[in-house]
Amino acid sequence: MAAIRNVETMSATERLDFAEMAKGHLIQPWPVAGEIGAEARGGIIAGDGIYVTDIEGRRLIDGPAGMWCTNVGHGCEPIARTLYEQAMTLSYNSPWYTASEPSVRLSKRLAAHAPGDLDHVFYTTGGSSAVETALRFMQFSNNVFGRPTKKRIVARQGGYHGSTYLSASLNGRPRDHDWMDSAGDLVVKLSCPNPFRRPAGQSVEAFCDMLVEEFSTTIETLGAETIGAFVAEPIMASGGVIVPPPGYLTRMRELCRENDILFIADEVVTAFGRLGNIFASKEVFGIEPDLITFAKGVTSGYFPLGGAMISAALLARLRQSNHADAMFAHGLTYSSHPIGCAVAETNLDLLEGGLLAHARDIAPYFQAQLKTLEDLPLVGEVRGLGLMACVECVADRESNNPLALDLEVGKRIDAHCQQLGLLVRPLIHMCVMSPPLTISRPQIDDLVSILRQGIALTQDELVREGLWKG
Amino acid sequence: MAAIRNVETMSATERLDFAEMAKGHLIQPWPVAGEIGAEARGGIIAGDGIYVTDIEGRRLIDGPAGMWCTNVGHGCEPIARTLYEQAMTLSYNSPWYTASEPSVRLSKRLAAHAPGDLDHVFYTTGGSSAVETALRFMQFSNNVFGRPTKKRIVARQGGYHGSTYLSASLNGRPRDHDWMDSAGDLVVKLSCPNPFRRPAGQSVEAFCDMLVEEFSTTIETLGAETIGAFVAEPIMASGGVIVPPPGYLTRMRELCRENDILFIADEVVTAFGRLGNIFASKEVFGIEPDLITFAKGVTSGYFPLGGAMISAALLARLRQSNHADAMFAHGLTYSSHPIGCAVAETNLDLLEGGLLAHARDIAPYFQAQLKTLEDLPLVGEVRGLGLMACVECVADRESNNPLALDLEVGKRIDAHCQQLGLLVRPLIHMCVMSPPLTISRPQIDDLVSILRQGIALTQDELVREGLWKG
Ligand SMILES: Cc1ncc(COP(=O)(O)O)c(C=O)c1O
Ligand SMILES: Cc1ncc(COP(=O)(O)O)c(C=O)c1O
Repeated sequence: MAAIRNVETMSATERLDFAEMAKGHLIQPWPVAGEIGAEARGGIIAGDGIYVTDIEGRRLIDGPAGMWCTNVGHGCEPIARTLYEQAMTLSYNSPWYTASEPSVRLSKRLAAHAPGDLDHVFYTTGGSSAVETALRFMQFSNNVFGRPTKKRIVARQGGYHGSTYLSASLNGRPRDHDWMDSAGDLVVKLSCPNPFRRPAGQSVEAFCDMLVEEFSTTIETLGAETIGAFVAEPIMASGGVIVPPPGYLTRMRELCRENDILFIADEVVTAFGRLGNIFASKEVFGIEPDLITFAKGVTSGYFPLGGAMISAALLARLRQSNHADAMFAHGLTYSSHPIGCAVAETNLDLLEGGLLAHARDIAPYFQAQLKTLEDLPLVGEVRGLGLMACVECVADRESNNPLALDLEVGKRIDAHCQQLGLLVRPLIHMCVMSPPLTISRPQIDDLVSILRQGIALTQDELVREGLWKG
Repeated sequence: MAAIRNVETMSATERLDFAEMAKGHLIQPWPVAGEIGAEARGGIIAGDGIYVTDIEGRRLIDGPAGMWCTNVGHGCEPIARTLYEQAMTLSYNSPWYTASEPSVRLSKRLAAHAPGDLDHVFYTTGGSSAVETALRFMQFSNNVFGRPTKKRIVARQGGYHGSTYLSASLNGRPRDHDWMDSAGDLVVKLSCPNPFRRPAGQSVEAFCDMLVEEFSTTIETLGAETIGAFVAEPIMASGGVIVPPPGYLTRMRELCRENDILFIADEVVTAFGRLGNIFASKEVFGIEPDLITFAKGVTSGYFPLGGAMISAALLARLRQSNHADAMFAHGLTYSSHPIGCAVAETNLDLLEGGLLAHARDIAPYFQAQLKTLEDLPLVGEVRGLGLMACVECVADRESNNPLALDLEVGKRIDAHCQQLGLLVRPLIHMCVMSPPLTISRPQIDDLVSILRQGIALTQDELVREGLWKG
């Protein structure tokens, strides 16, 4: 048995050992060359509800819910029990030859929640592999349909879709590509639909027209026969919680339909309660995509599971093709994992059994309280929807110009907040908030009050260091 | 809570429902266009030790251990308990900002087992993402080292490395690519090192010379400055348990060293006890790779975890480069998952605590008993090492020519064996055997005796149907 210890039992020496072991043996996501293999990130050893406990015994509100994923909160006993019981019943079966009950049952339940005719699921182990599945499915389909050149993928600046070679090629955030290779020739990027950064003087409506026009022109220029898919997060998450202008998604969807381009809604973040529904595409944004990719909240982070919902019409079209034997040579060892699917079922029980309603109920309060931070001079905008929000810092409220990138204001705010009891997800000059859906009104008050203090302390610090005029 | 039921409680009607639900909502790996979205694979509902129980209540020996992964066997209570306890302690932490105890401890333990200076781990959620990590790391390193053209990847015919766009581009088995797109221009494929299919009249030594010569010529022709990595399974698994000629791996490794080409050993199957050791590269084949990819057995399939072990020398070279800020923009939400790492620790406890010794002890008996099947006229060769083996069928023992592909002899054998109590992993005309490492001598006798009957029944059937001369 792995030694699972209590917080109390870790001495100062052990804490040093922990850091040494981390430096000596563990490489974590997004390291820089100068520190790779010689870096230790802050230790977290326990979690309960909306809180985690760090290696020094501090209890912190988990502001980002891990990584937009711990939707039901930490220490969820029904999920832990499901892990145990399904592991004792059937821990694994090969999806190449066999099927498990949890995978079959979960598929039916997800189909019932998914919009339109998206009634089939292909399971993976996370968001990147879900996006790979959707993209490889598009490539396969167009090969079967005899149009091998209809393969370009349209994505957006500011988007994030994963960390495999192909899914990462779609990413459009600063620094995603500087030192990485990508399948760039397969991808076309449109502008980021961020109303806060629209051209000065332009109305939100005109901004939306411009974005739709850009897609339309791109289709005309490149030819619809060269474009296979448009991939979009309904709300860009890691790009800074970008809520697109009203009407944007429905109009982009319409352009896809007119040009036989698959609309892939990447709901890795927006699904499973983050916006109050199991899927957000239809119920929040009024669109029926051709495919939906999901991950994170489907298991509240307790188990690596993701997948793609696929339209019945598309599947029928494949079955009726002239190439019955054409093989979709795609699948993972852990596709349709029985434990992951059982966890997702319990997670769904919790969401359907009250948590979705709670998330919908509490979201306006969450957004309103965070919005009060806009009176701080460093804060340019607080935006969001449901239980996802972003506090964006600016040099001043007149220009809304960002601070110089290398200030990493988000990191400074995070450092102060951690001292005060809140874990922030810093994104350069932004702080993202997406707490567990179980959060209560008093806990929201705590979160916002700590964030206010953290930002205020950062303001003072920046002025003191002569980095900001105040 | 997900309803986890007993075998006994599923009625005939429920079994029909199960198939209907599967057809209506679940898509499993490697479907063909003619059946996609309308197919149900055989239901498996429980597992214990080396056995699984199917939807009709039949108890079957799990010949392939799921998919080469259930190394400690089904229903392993210490692992189920770890799942529960770690979920209740800390179910998730973001690896972008934080580190968990299980991930740090496991890394140290893996480093102690890994060959040479491979002392750091980057975790993923399975084999494909482990291979993506190794390949993207090679691309990143060569960008940082100022040699952006040193990126070609050398792989082999018959190999299997995953199911994402880039990892799948390395695959070299029949039908892997027919209808799929790939990054083919990044990949070069060498011959399959399969002694059983070497040119007629050639000695194994001469065959090995030829293979090494082929790599050497490829390097000369393309230029070492265009080749970033050589990727090889020490024993090709899904390609049919291809044990390379003696000396092959060490000589290929040497060519890599001479040409500054990273040697990536894909140990997704061969590690964690399948060949009697935690890693096989050094202890079985005498090589020290630059990177090792692993998955499957690291958690015995109870949790999607994989990763890449990376050489300290490589990391130091990156730290000493002129680009301290260059970011390796790579990582998954579920990198270093605390539950996965805790499961891997318990799994390692079991392996170190007796299971490795048992696997080493029993392997010769396993191979010898399977080898007796070579007296069956349909069997061309039984080969393998440790607890992985392959029974390859042929038209006749004189030519060793394969049977016509579309006979799918493996599937026929599997069907008979399932009636008799054994789940086989059919691979076209081959049957792969890689049972849980816990298997006992009497259980091996059972397995081999059922397989003998299954092959004999298949022989009769093929003759009866006029498909084989007998
Ligand atoms: C919208 C979106 N898609 C895909 C991914 C990739 O998911 P994963 O990290 O599980 O591969 C993420 C991860 O943050 C995401 O936010
Ligand atoms: C040698 C090898 N590498 C990589 C993979 C891919 O692993 P996964 O299916 O977990 O992505 C496999 C899977 O069978 C494998 O056998």
